[in-house]
Amino acid sequence: MAAIAPDKKLDFPPTERTRVKRLHERGHYDRETVHAILDAGLICHVSYVIDGQPYATPTSYWREGDMLYWHGSSASRMLENVATGIPVCVTVTHLDGLVLARSGFHSSINYRAVMALGVARLVSDETAKLNTLRAFVERLTPGRWAELRPVTARELKATTVVGMPLKEVSAKVRTGPPKDDAEDYALDVWAGVLPLRQVAAPAIPDPKLKAGVALPRYLQDYALDRYARAKG
Amino acid sequence: MAAIAPDKKLDFPPTERTRVKRLHERGHYDRETVHAILDAGLICHVSYVIDGQPYATPTSYWREGDMLYWHGSSASRMLENVATGIPVCVTVTHLDGLVLARSGFHSSINYRAVMALGVARLVSDETAKLNTLRAFVERLTPGRWAELRPVTARELKATTVVGMPLKEVSAKVRTGPPKDDAEDYALDVWAGVLPLRQVAAPAIPDPKLKAGVALPRYLQDYALDRYARAKG
Repeated sequence: MAAIAPDKKLDFPPTERTRVKRLHERGHYDRETVHAILDAGLICHVSYVIDGQPYATPTSYWREGDMLYWHGSSASRMLENVATGIPVCVTVTHLDGLVLARSGFHSSINYRAVMALGVARLVSDETAKLNTLRAFVERLTPGRWAELRPVTARELKATTVVGMPLKEVSAKVRTGPPKDDAEDYALDVWAGVLPLRQVAAPAIPDPKLKAGVALPRYLQDYALDRYARAKG
Repeated sequence: MAAIAPDKKLDFPPTERTRVKRLHERGHYDRETVHAILDAGLICHVSYVIDGQPYATPTSYWREGDMLYWHGSSASRMLENVATGIPVCVTVTHLDGLVLARSGFHSSINYRAVMALGVARLVSDETAKLNTLRAFVERLTPGRWAELRPVTARELKATTVVGMPLKEVSAKVRTGPPKDDAEDYALDVWAGVLPLRQVAAPAIPDPKLKAGVALPRYLQDYALDRYARAKG
C-alpha cells in the first residue's frame, strides 16, 4: 500500500475509494487545495447509475463551506435520479497544460482535479433554495443578483437544487516540467510545458439589449478563477 | 415524447438512453457534430461503476473514425476495470460562455458536449497499440512522433489502451444569446454572453532543455481546436 506523505493534511480522510494510489504524490486531501480547485471552476461532471448504466452529466455547480451544490430543471433526469439519494461522484477538472517529454511514455498533462463521492439531497426549503441560488449568481457575477428581475414562486418551484456534503473527497494535481529518463535529457527533442487556460473574451451584448444599458463592472476583464485567487 | 426535428441527421440513432429529452432542440445525433466536438477537446470524463459506486475519471482521449480511445498506466484502477467490458459513459464537454439573462431563471451556459455510452475493449495487438498512440501524439502535436525517442517494448507493455466504438452517442449544444421572458426585455439589466475559451500561453521550455533545441513549429501559436477547425 502506497504511503501518504506525513506532511500532507488530511482534512478529508482518504478512504480506499478516494486515496490516490498510483503517483500518490499527486494526491491531496486538505480543505484548502480541494476548495481552491472547486472555486476555480464552473462545470463539474456528475456521475450516477440508472439500470446499471453509468452516466456522466456536465452541469454547473457552486460551493458553500463543505457543501457542493448543483441545480437544473425539475424535469431533469439527472436531478430526478440523484435527488433520490443514489451514490454519485462529482468530478471537477482543470486542464492546465500539455507536458511534452522527450518520449511519448513520459509525456503527460498538467491538471487539477477533485473527485467527491457521496449522496446528494434536495434543497427543499424555499428560503434555503433561494439563498443558495443567490450564492451561485454572486459567485460568478458579484453584484448581479440585486440587478436581476426577482425569482418568481413558479420559477423557484421549477428549479431543483441538490446539495452534497464534501466528505469523501480527494484532489489530484500535476504541475511542472516533464520527468524524463536520465539518458533522454541528452536528446535533441524539445521538451517543456504548453500552458493551457480558460479565458473570457469581451462580453457580447444581447442583440435585444435595451439601449443605454452599460456593461456591468463584474463583466469587465473577467477571469473565471479570480474569486479563487482573491480568496487564496 | 418529445419529437426529434425531421431535419436532424441520425447517424447515431438515438436510444431511450441518449435521446435529449428536455430542450430537445439542443440534441444532435449526426457524425459531423459529434466528431467536431470530440476533436476540439483533450480531456474526457470516463464514468464506470465499481461495487455500486459510480466514478467519473478525467483522462485524455483521441478519436479515429468512429472509435474513441484512451490510455494510461497498466496499473490504473479505471483502466483495469473498464477493460473488463463493464458499461461506461464517456463525456466530453466544452464550456463556451456564460449566458446572462435578465432573470436568474433564464441564465444559462453555452456549451458543446458529447455523451457516448458503450463498452471499451483492450487494444492488445502491439502494432495496433503503437499505431493509435502515434495517432494521439500526432493529433495534438503533428510531426512530433518522429522526433521522440522511440517507444520501448517495456513501455508499450506498461501502457494500457482501450477503444470504444461510437454507437450510442448524442451531442448537446447551446449557442447564442439568452432567451428571456417577453416582458423582461424592457428591464434595465445588462444581458448577453460572456464567451469563454481554452487558449494556450507561450510554451515554457524544460529547465533541463538541451541548449540549442528550438521550439517546434507545431507549438507556435498553438490552438487546441485548430485541427477540428481545419477538418470542418
